[in-house]
Amino acid sequence: MTMAFEHTTLAQRVLFGAGRAAEDLAGEVRRRAAGRVMAIASPSERHLAEQVCRDVDVAVWFDDVVQHVPVEKAEAARTVAAAHDVELLVCVGGGSTTGLAKAVALTTGIPIVAVPTTYAGSEATDVWGLTEARTKTTGVDGRVLPATVVYDATLTVSLPVELSVASGLNSLAHCVDSLWAPRTDPINQALALEGARALARALPAVAADPTGLAGREQALYGCYLAAVAFASAGSGLHHKICHVLGGTFDLPHAPTHATVLPHVLALNAPAVPELAGRLAAALGSPAIDGGDPAAAAGAALGRLYAGLPTPSRLADLGFTEADVPEATARVLAAAPPSNPVPVTDTNITSLLTDALTGAIPAPAG
Amino acid sequence: MTMAFEHTTLAQRVLFGAGRAAEDLAGEVRRRAAGRVMAIASPSERHLAEQVCRDVDVAVWFDDVVQHVPVEKAEAARTVAAAHDVELLVCVGGGSTTGLAKAVALTTGIPIVAVPTTYAGSEATDVWGLTEARTKTTGVDGRVLPATVVYDATLTVSLPVELSVASGLNSLAHCVDSLWAPRTDPINQALALEGARALARALPAVAADPTGLAGREQALYGCYLAAVAFASAGSGLHHKICHVLGGTFDLPHAPTHATVLPHVLALNAPAVPELAGRLAAALGSPAIDGGDPAAAAGAALGRLYAGLPTPSRLADLGFTEADVPEATARVLAAAPPSNPVPVTDTNITSLLTDALTGAIPAPAG
Repeated sequence: MTMAFEHTTLAQRVLFGAGRAAEDLAGEVRRRAAGRVMAIASPSERHLAEQVCRDVDVAVWFDDVVQHVPVEKAEAARTVAAAHDVELLVCVGGGSTTGLAKAVALTTGIPIVAVPTTYAGSEATDVWGLTEARTKTTGVDGRVLPATVVYDATLTVSLPVELSVASGLNSLAHCVDSLWAPRTDPINQALALEGARALARALPAVAADPTGLAGREQALYGCYLAAVAFASAGSGLHHKICHVLGGTFDLPHAPTHATVLPHVLALNAPAVPELAGRLAAALGSPAIDGGDPAAAAGAALGRLYAGLPTPSRLADLGFTEADVPEATARVLAAAPPSNPVPVTDTNITSLLTDALTGAIPAPAG
Repeated sequence: MTMAFEHTTLAQRVLFGAGRAAEDLAGEVRRRAAGRVMAIASPSERHLAEQVCRDVDVAVWFDDVVQHVPVEKAEAARTVAAAHDVELLVCVGGGSTTGLAKAVALTTGIPIVAVPTTYAGSEATDVWGLTEARTKTTGVDGRVLPATVVYDATLTVSLPVELSVASGLNSLAHCVDSLWAPRTDPINQALALEGARALARALPAVAADPTGLAGREQALYGCYLAAVAFASAGSGLHHKICHVLGGTFDLPHAPTHATVLPHVLALNAPAVPELAGRLAAALGSPAIDGGDPAAAAGAALGRLYAGLPTPSRLADLGFTEADVPEATARVLAAAPPSNPVPVTDTNITSLLTDALTGAIPAPAG
């Protein structure tokens, strides 16, 4: 067994601390000696953003933030940035807000300091997205990676529990799927497992005490690592399946991810026993000495789900038995060659049928 | 319990693959579109370096490599680089060779592609060192971080076993000490634990089969992560103790690190039980459910040492009982405030006495 991989580590500063966003942001703006700052926040988060920017001399605010970053909004933001000779972008908000800052950075090279208020994870990647005529284009460019991220868990305590859990499980799916994604390597695997460890402790804590900082901090930290690992490793089988279910059958994003994850784990874990054992440990599994690591990982994920408000079958999300054949065909066409278990009509049909009905997946090993 | 940290991730590409150095290096030079390459290697590694550079158009070779990077050698290398309009530095060798490339990059900003042939780890850090009039100056500068590292375990198979084990244990000490170093944070802790995991499996394999690639790959990978984690976290108590023992009492570097490590772990582990449990797991400990994680970590380290050719007491390295009081005083003065156990005359005297005599350290918890 030999190791061969290519891993690119992206440069980024992370400042992490509850209640410290304003102080950390001001310190970072000073440290960068950035003169003219453009602050980006949606109207609904403007008040929060003003608090975060209270010690920063903001040259211009931009608040025309729309989901999926329409190109005309990106152009408008670029025009404002140019008109004000902006030297630094500060974005305070979720994925759409960060996405708009990235769109400006993409063509201008202006650096970004991101202050996330959700678990989107976009702030930790060099991936950008723009929507034109209802078509989303994405790409990878080093210029869009925020130079610094300021994480402050107090900015996330008002996120609704169900949304937080769904978003957290989506991040957990990023971690798990990274283990067998096309560009998986030992480094992004280690980061993915650390993210899974944080999320497994975070999500029950957030569900039990939504305003408790300990859970919120672990969730924010776990989602950050999930984004780093996923951006490095790429989309594995889980994400290809969810892409088909969302794109062709219009199933809702986050609940679909949550529902499908245990089934993909059950399929793949027996083929990667060492990683499965490490994932089981990360998810808080008791000792698995001599036991089956794939079963332990599945059981640990099952215990995590049992304590969370999450859907358990695709039937509840609009998927039907009649959809299984087409979905299977599309998944087979999209499945990455890196998947540790060769995908077949039989195992994908079986996976989708189990996910449809909420049958408890049993590791195939 | 809240999390607050500041973590800077450094940008670097890692190409890892046994037997692929020449191919990976040539690909990287092409990818960077670098015109004029200066290759740096010591005379004893020139032949190896020429093989590694066989598909690269080397404009000029520089082989006047001396330990600790004397400033006059650095100046000579800079002069050659300037005379040849060099655009890329390729260094093939150990810490001194990488260090010379860093010295050139420090003043010129010329990027480096490093091809390590030892476990030194310098290639993974932004730390430089220069020696003038027998005084070594070190510093941190982003320009000296190699842009790309090409790791090829076949270049390391001829390293003698004793040196490999000593160097590997030195790296393991970097990993362990990172857990409580001044700038320790969850991210460098996760990388340190991954490094420890790799080294714990690597070193017995290298000792048993020095030319076996599986062990050599894990060792190279583990030493890389150790360097990344240590550069991020800084010097903890272990390194301060070894610095005193080396600097004031002239004890040999690597064996001193190996001998001291279990004693520092025994002192600190009880104060950081969660990290100790994760370290125990990384070192291959069987389950510690309900057990004492600090004891498990110590036992796991003890089992690792038992299979390796390594010294067990400072008495064999030239340290004496009469040296303990002065060493204690110097350690107390140098110990980082971040240490999880407050250092006292009593516990450091006890630690050094145990390390002197090779008494098996028992966790204080």
